[in-house]
Amino acid sequence: MTTPCPPASNDRWLRGQQKLAEIDGAAGQNVIDALADIAPDFANYLFEYPFGDIYSRSGLDLRAREIATIAALTAMGNAAPQLKVHIEAGLNVGLQREEIVEILMQMSVYAGFPAALNGLFAAKEVFARYAPAPPVATGGAPA
Amino acid sequence: MTTPCPPASNDRWLRGQQKLAEIDGAAGQNVIDALADIAPDFANYLFEYPFGDIYSRSGLDLRAREIATIAALTAMGNAAPQLKVHIEAGLNVGLQREEIVEILMQMSVYAGFPAALNGLFAAKEVFARYAPAPPVATGGAPA
Amino acid sequence: MTTPCPPASNDRWLRGQQKLAEIDGAAGQNVIDALADIAPDFANYLFEYPFGDIYSRSGLDLRAREIATIAALTAMGNAAPQLKVHIEAGLNVGLQREEIVEILMQMSVYAGFPAALNGLFAAKEVFARYAPAPPVATGGAPA
Amino acid sequence: MTTPCPPASNDRWLRGQQKLAEIDGAAGQNVIDALADIAPDFANYLFEYPFGDIYSRSGLDLRAREIATIAALTAMGNAAPQLKVHIEAGLNVGLQREEIVEILMQMSVYAGFPAALNGLFAAKEVFARYAPAPPVATGGAPA
Amino acid sequence: MTTPCPPASNDRWLRGQQKLAEIDGAAGQNVIDALADIAPDFANYLFEYPFGDIYSRSGLDLRAREIATIAALTAMGNAAPQLKVHIEAGLNVGLQREEIVEILMQMSVYAGFPAALNGLFAAKEVFARYAPAPPVATGGAPA
Amino acid sequence: MTTPCPPASNDRWLRGQQKLAEIDGAAGQNVIDALADIAPDFANYLFEYPFGDIYSRSGLDLRAREIATIAALTAMGNAAPQLKVHIEAGLNVGLQREEIVEILMQMSVYAGFPAALNGLFAAKEVFARYAPAPPVATGGAPA
Repeated sequence: MTTPCPPASNDRWLRGQQKLAEIDGAAGQNVIDALADIAPDFANYLFEYPFGDIYSRSGLDLRAREIATIAALTAMGNAAPQLKVHIEAGLNVGLQREEIVEILMQMSVYAGFPAALNGLFAAKEVFARYAPAPPVATGGAPA
Repeated sequence: MTTPCPPASNDRWLRGQQKLAEIDGAAGQNVIDALADIAPDFANYLFEYPFGDIYSRSGLDLRAREIATIAALTAMGNAAPQLKVHIEAGLNVGLQREEIVEILMQMSVYAGFPAALNGLFAAKEVFARYAPAPPVATGGAPA
Repeated sequence: MTTPCPPASNDRWLRGQQKLAEIDGAAGQNVIDALADIAPDFANYLFEYPFGDIYSRSGLDLRAREIATIAALTAMGNAAPQLKVHIEAGLNVGLQREEIVEILMQMSVYAGFPAALNGLFAAKEVFARYAPAPPVATGGAPA
Repeated sequence: MTTPCPPASNDRWLRGQQKLAEIDGAAGQNVIDALADIAPDFANYLFEYPFGDIYSRSGLDLRAREIATIAALTAMGNAAPQLKVHIEAGLNVGLQREEIVEILMQMSVYAGFPAALNGLFAAKEVFARYAPAPPVATGGAPA
Repeated sequence: MTTPCPPASNDRWLRGQQKLAEIDGAAGQNVIDALADIAPDFANYLFEYPFGDIYSRSGLDLRAREIATIAALTAMGNAAPQLKVHIEAGLNVGLQREEIVEILMQMSVYAGFPAALNGLFAAKEVFARYAPAPPVATGGAPA
Repeated sequence: MTTPCPPASNDRWLRGQQKLAEIDGAAGQNVIDALADIAPDFANYLFEYPFGDIYSRSGLDLRAREIATIAALTAMGNAAPQLKVHIEAGLNVGLQREEIVEILMQMSVYAGFPAALNGLFAAKEVFARYAPAPPVATGGAPA
């Protein structure tokens, strides 16, 4: 005899965990790990809302979503670590390096040349160490 | 027989003027008109750099470029008039209303719920008055 | 015989709806209503994550949470409608007008005098029309 | 027999009041008046720190100081009322309209074209209603 | 025979110096020391306005003031060194680590998940090296 | 017999290259070099628009332009590398160290004390290693 009802947020959590692994790979997992001893609940929220809710919606593909995220983080200019994670995520979901460079250059129009330059130098760093992720075994997903 | 060489910046200016008309339609022209008595040179720069240079590049299609611009302006949250112009531009270049709503909702993750809400209410206003642009006769282009 | 398991997110949704009514009163409901014809899903997320998850946590009381929100929105300076909602929310959860004015003045140190001034003028507008909310019947909550 | 020592902050307050009148004229006084019923202490701080301390320093002339302020407020893009006050202040301290337009256009490089456009349209509004201030009788200054 | 009138700004300066020592401890003094060879006057302003004027006001306790400051600096996301100083200041004036973590997580709602994450990682660093400050002998204060 | 017409953008490119060398010296060239393997086209845009178009305009001298840029980048607070380049550029075009310090301190009024402090510490670093640039041989300029 077994639990008939999963914890209320379980579906979102599992879906988010898988989606984060699909998009951000090891870089996403590093963020989750770094939260363990300061704010473990926030790791759960990160699985649930951004990845379990938003990135799991069907109305826009992951390629378009990463274009939006890379543009926004470059324009805001105050979240360098997350910009690097999402430049890598962009490559993971199929954006070409040249396309990412186009997005970053375009941000000079909306957020100024310094924001674009800092985005380009972030991309240079990510591109230098990037190798396509191997297939991810999404830990925690049901068999 | 005269002038063998067009003004140095002429190509960019013409290309930018056509590209602005293609993307932003009447909304773009309104901005240009409003600059006439305060900073006419800035209207030229607007044709030349953002539209003649950046949006005219071949490495990313206009649909992807408008996703990036809508995301960035929503996240920055301090340029409401330009956000509205680019939500309309997004519709002009083929984004569906539902896709634009997805981009705006996603910004809650990167710039907070107020930025996303203000973006959604800007879209509501644009959608309410939007009718697809008729074919544009790009004034100033050579016959 | 009835549904043994509520929809996965139901608890958060109901808890968030009640919490939003408690904190933001009519101003919160106006935001939800305004989303109905542009992004109804975003109204659900708004119930669920900010109010069902974050504001419902026990580690910090609502008074402290509204101090944090009023400070943040004033400092960012790009979300005037939401700042007004939260100045009203601050009054709803027990902040005195004088305390809110102190928070806003303090923001001159961290975000500059213009941000503080714009916050003070937002408060002036809210204080002028504010009357304490009557007890709220939290619509949608189970009997 | 009379008070031998003026209130500690008196000098800064008087100097700031005169400096605000010299720079911002009626626009500055409007801000002070608007604070009277919400945060009168903040009007004092505004006299004392920005105007009594900073703008009264000898190391940089008022023309240079207004160039800096106009540039900063345009680039931040979230303080339109204060930007207008300082465009007017720039005219008051001797900047030419053409020079202000140059500063605003230059901001396109550092904060993007939308910030520059919004700055230019603010200037257009100020220029349209601006008439040079008559000599100011700086209220409150000792005879 | 003695000076009947202290220098005009003396009270604010002394009060500010004590308040800065009380709130920020050694971290505050480090900032003052670092200013000595670049802008010593700015160290005076820092004593006088933020600490001698604002933090010394009676309308809001230091706990509430640090909640506001931590929230604002996290949301702005462009002042990491000052955020760390104020996370430490929060601990100095009685905020619990768990309360600070709540404030930081809440900022995900208003400024996005990257701002909250960067705030949490700043807190992790401060918490790791924090030991409660010993009683401070506020240098410069009159006996 | 040969090309009678130079490439359309040639004049702007050459003028921009010379202007960048005049203003930013080696620091500017380092930025151009760093772009070579990630976005060489963006180096061209950087020559052409900011330096060939904007900084080459006659309506405002370079001293005033650098005051505006230093103020804007300090206030935005999210472009530290570019702020350092322009503090050095300010020295190159004749601003005194004391004048730069005045601009940075003034930003506390418009963008808060943390922005001003971070600007001052950037200046401290630049001043420590600055030696006036030797006359620059502007590579690429026509004989």
